Amino acid sequence: MTLITLTTDFGLKDGNVGVMKGVIWSRAPQAQIVDLSHLISPQNVREASLILGRALPYFPDGTVYVVVVDPGVGTERRPIAVRLGEQFLVGPDNGVFTLAYEYAETQDWPLHVVLLDRPQYWLPQVSYVFHGRDVFAPVAGSLAAGVPLEELGRPIYDPVRIDFPQPEAIDGGLRGEIIHIDHFGNLSSCILRQHLGERPGATIRISGVNIHGMVKTFGERPDGELIALYGSSGNLIVSVVNGDAAKRLGARLGDKIEVFF
Amino acid sequence: MTLITLTTDFGLKDGNVGVMKGVIWSRAPQAQIVDLSHLISPQNVREASLILGRALPYFPDGTVYVVVVDPGVGTERRPIAVRLGEQFLVGPDNGVFTLAYEYAETQDWPLHVVLLDRPQYWLPQVSYVFHGRDVFAPVAGSLAAGVPLEELGRPIYDPVRIDFPQPEAIDGGLRGEIIHIDHFGNLSSCILRQHLGERPGATIRISGVNIHGMVKTFGERPDGELIALYGSSGNLIVSVVNGDAAKRLGARLGDKIEVFF
Amino acid sequence: MTLITLTTDFGLKDGNVGVMKGVIWSRAPQAQIVDLSHLISPQNVREASLILGRALPYFPDGTVYVVVVDPGVGTERRPIAVRLGEQFLVGPDNGVFTLAYEYAETQDWPLHVVLLDRPQYWLPQVSYVFHGRDVFAPVAGSLAAGVPLEELGRPIYDPVRIDFPQPEAIDGGLRGEIIHIDHFGNLSSCILRQHLGERPGATIRISGVNIHGMVKTFGERPDGELIALYGSSGNLIVSVVNGDAAKRLGARLGDKIEVFF
Repeated sequence: MTLITLTTDFGLKDGNVGVMKGVIWSRAPQAQIVDLSHLISPQNVREASLILGRALPYFPDGTVYVVVVDPGVGTERRPIAVRLGEQFLVGPDNGVFTLAYEYAETQDWPLHVVLLDRPQYWLPQVSYVFHGRDVFAPVAGSLAAGVPLEELGRPIYDPVRIDFPQPEAIDGGLRGEIIHIDHFGNLSSCILRQHLGERPGATIRISGVNIHGMVKTFGERPDGELIALYGSSGNLIVSVVNGDAAKRLGARLGDKIEVFF
Repeated sequence: MTLITLTTDFGLKDGNVGVMKGVIWSRAPQAQIVDLSHLISPQNVREASLILGRALPYFPDGTVYVVVVDPGVGTERRPIAVRLGEQFLVGPDNGVFTLAYEYAETQDWPLHVVLLDRPQYWLPQVSYVFHGRDVFAPVAGSLAAGVPLEELGRPIYDPVRIDFPQPEAIDGGLRGEIIHIDHFGNLSSCILRQHLGERPGATIRISGVNIHGMVKTFGERPDGELIALYGSSGNLIVSVVNGDAAKRLGARLGDKIEVFF
Repeated sequence: MTLITLTTDFGLKDGNVGVMKGVIWSRAPQAQIVDLSHLISPQNVREASLILGRALPYFPDGTVYVVVVDPGVGTERRPIAVRLGEQFLVGPDNGVFTLAYEYAETQDWPLHVVLLDRPQYWLPQVSYVFHGRDVFAPVAGSLAAGVPLEELGRPIYDPVRIDFPQPEAIDGGLRGEIIHIDHFGNLSSCILRQHLGERPGATIRISGVNIHGMVKTFGERPDGELIALYGSSGNLIVSVVNGDAAKRLGARLGDKIEVFF
């Protein structure tokens, strides 16, 4: 069995994700397919990179991760496939794999990238607007069916990487920004445990509000209270206990967050 | 093959459900995973219990039902696994399995509950905020891979149960309340066929409106008409033919509904 | 392995899709199940037909397509199963398979339709309101498990077909209408490449706006520009580059679109 994960901005109503699965299973009937998210904000390459980067540590060797957030479809942007250690990536070379590359580096996994330039691994007819179905799904199916990465195209050495916000030192603390807002309205920042360490007495400032102290989990405070804690990927997050911090604070992606030790 | 069902309030955009599947399939590659719902209202333990209770009769022996609606994550609430006859439950001991226990009792299935207190069956690192990934998914994968329930922790005998609304007798009839509003806007009440029997001539009162008579199915009345009938789980429901009763009546969870014979 | 696709208007929150999968896997444990869409607009048979018709060319032989968009459930509308060449359809005979029949005709696939009139292939108890669970899921599971179509019921020869909008000739061009609006807000029309051919110099008029020329893909124009092009199924579509054409134009299903050569 091989796992194939799908991450797109296609939404769930139009059948396009299902069609990709039909193409994959036509080539790799033994695969299991996992939806990571199809609700990436339209064309938001950075958000897709983040969702993928957080998932990568939890899948078994041999997994093929397909990402189709592809505003440049049909233009000169390159379609690529990548081997990271024992895992595989398939999608457009627009930076969407940046955090996957960084994770691979923390694991000392070698990185092999090929340009998808061999149409025999694609559908016979390739549209200008849906490479998820016509190029990436059949390539992912081929990988899952055992085709070596090297067969899919010629190697390239300069895959695109994009910048992500990083925390910066300020007087008496750190400043970062909100990089993800989840389904519950939790605000996830670019400040990680590795930047900050355990700081139960820190003050966190966001949207003009101060939060005094960090907690370990939601249940330490009563319902409705605004708290700061580390989320499940080690990011500093701001939450409302059994509530919605994004709504409470009117917060948005990119809003600044400051921590004072 | 073993089936594993997932029921959460995680939503579909953040990748958390997919990550749980990666963890499960790392342990039980032969499993099939079914999403029951990831759109349970945040922290709504009662709604999750209802969705699970309605699904249980339709899955084969050996199914593992994982539920992660877990407002107490990281606190003293107990993580548990349960064997109900030939089926298994995994999740927090917060009452979310109440209707599953009741269903098991109607089937005379014995009930075995263990406290998940053996970290060797969890991920090596357990966060304070995502036990779905770190505890419940690996435990479900272990069950699906054949680990006996008794290996996962010590038995306990007092799993938490929560109350659900029950119909009460009123002068000339029964009074209940709306316990679920579905995607179509159908209003499902706590009054069951077993309470009421066949009552084609009953009058149903809800939101100040009287519905005269019960029908068997939607197509018996013209589009747009308000009707009362039994839903697919035997609950008395109120619907608008090819329309949305919740919108029409401005109805909400907990609204009263009365039946006069 | 057999693929089974599901297309419904059930939404994703109530667990009904999961229950259908439990019923299917109880009969066909080796099947893979693919969600095409569960966000078909309530009771919109035409939309379901369109989504299914676009998917059909991308699935392998032996696939079973279940569609449950069924405003007539529990009435005299007929439940049917169909063999189209090497593929199978299961659902209500309300026209939802019209475009599948048309696709089969383009492929010269013979068409065999049976009325589902043999309750031994259904669940033991059949509700009046959820034939997806009680009739169509068990029949699909039976087909996937190898039961011949002819066993499921007696043949019928007059399956229901419904009309879809067709383009019409106007002075100097063609007039059609918008038949689908996707997750991105792209407007898909009933005018196909086979009607229009390659027309880089055509003028497209919609919502009182003229678009001069057709492009091949999104990236040929700057962000925010309104464009006309062929979509991935060969329909003439109107889009905004990295934007939402439906919102920009205030367009709706059924709006007219005109092309002048």
